[in-house]
Amino acid sequence: MKDFPGTPGTFSSLIFRILQSLFAAGSIASMATSPGFSSYTAFCYLIVSMALQFIWSLGLAFLDLYQLVKKTDLHQSILVSLFVAGDWVTGMLSLGAVSASAGLAVFFSKDLDFCKVVPCWNYQLAISLGFFSWLLVWFSSLVMLWLLATG
Amino acid sequence: MKDFPGTPGTFSSLIFRILQSLFAAGSIASMATSPGFSSYTAFCYLIVSMALQFIWSLGLAFLDLYQLVKKTDLHQSILVSLFVAGDWVTGMLSLGAVSASAGLAVFFSKDLDFCKVVPCWNYQLAISLGFFSWLLVWFSSLVMLWLLATG
Repeated sequence: MKDFPGTPGTFSSLIFRILQSLFAAGSIASMATSPGFSSYTAFCYLIVSMALQFIWSLGLAFLDLYQLVKKTDLHQSILVSLFVAGDWVTGMLSLGAVSASAGLAVFFSKDLDFCKVVPCWNYQLAISLGFFSWLLVWFSSLVMLWLLATG
Repeated sequence: MKDFPGTPGTFSSLIFRILQSLFAAGSIASMATSPGFSSYTAFCYLIVSMALQFIWSLGLAFLDLYQLVKKTDLHQSILVSLFVAGDWVTGMLSLGAVSASAGLAVFFSKDLDFCKVVPCWNYQLAISLGFFSWLLVWFSSLVMLWLLATG
């Protein structure tokens, strides 16, 4: 299989996976410290989805690190298929959760003007960080699919 | 370029594009006939996104039909790249809009119990139809990316 930036076992892939984990962890931290977030289903779903994203990306970061240190090759079709499936599932759950939370946050801030009374910046920060995490996962999933198709 | 089910100019692709358009049109119709939908940004965004989806999918349906009738070949890299970009952009906008609306609908029905007072079935139907439209676009975009990669 080909070896281009973003494929498993490269330094760029490791950086991407670490950034994905960091953004997901930041999103969880920001949402979990927001007062009263647990009253809203969409915000709870964002935490669950970002937790899944964090576990998945961190796992793959360790795998990339292992490959870089041990110089092994994990570009086998069956493994790449697994990475593709995992990236797509976590990526779509993340986009769904970020959008659902954004829909609710826009309802509070724009439709209700609720954010003039209660500060919403924690929600907005969590959603922004979640969005960046998803953006990086989306890039990884495209690279993985491309790798599988050209494999 | 390869010719497998779902690639442009095949009968299966035509059926997929028509179904995408129909689901998007159904979603718009259901949301537009909901009383008071215009007060909610997420629901307005769903209509805009589904309108874009409808135009894109219907355009590609006509292109598929033209290819089937005229027996021309549109599997050129530059055209497939355009289809991939269009499918990805409309697909992600659709998923974002559907999720944002779903986040708000769950807030109304589950968090607020608002749907016991005002019927929400129009919103829920619009979101479900939008979701099916996105699901079909997602499949098309995977096929297109695969076609471009294996081109």
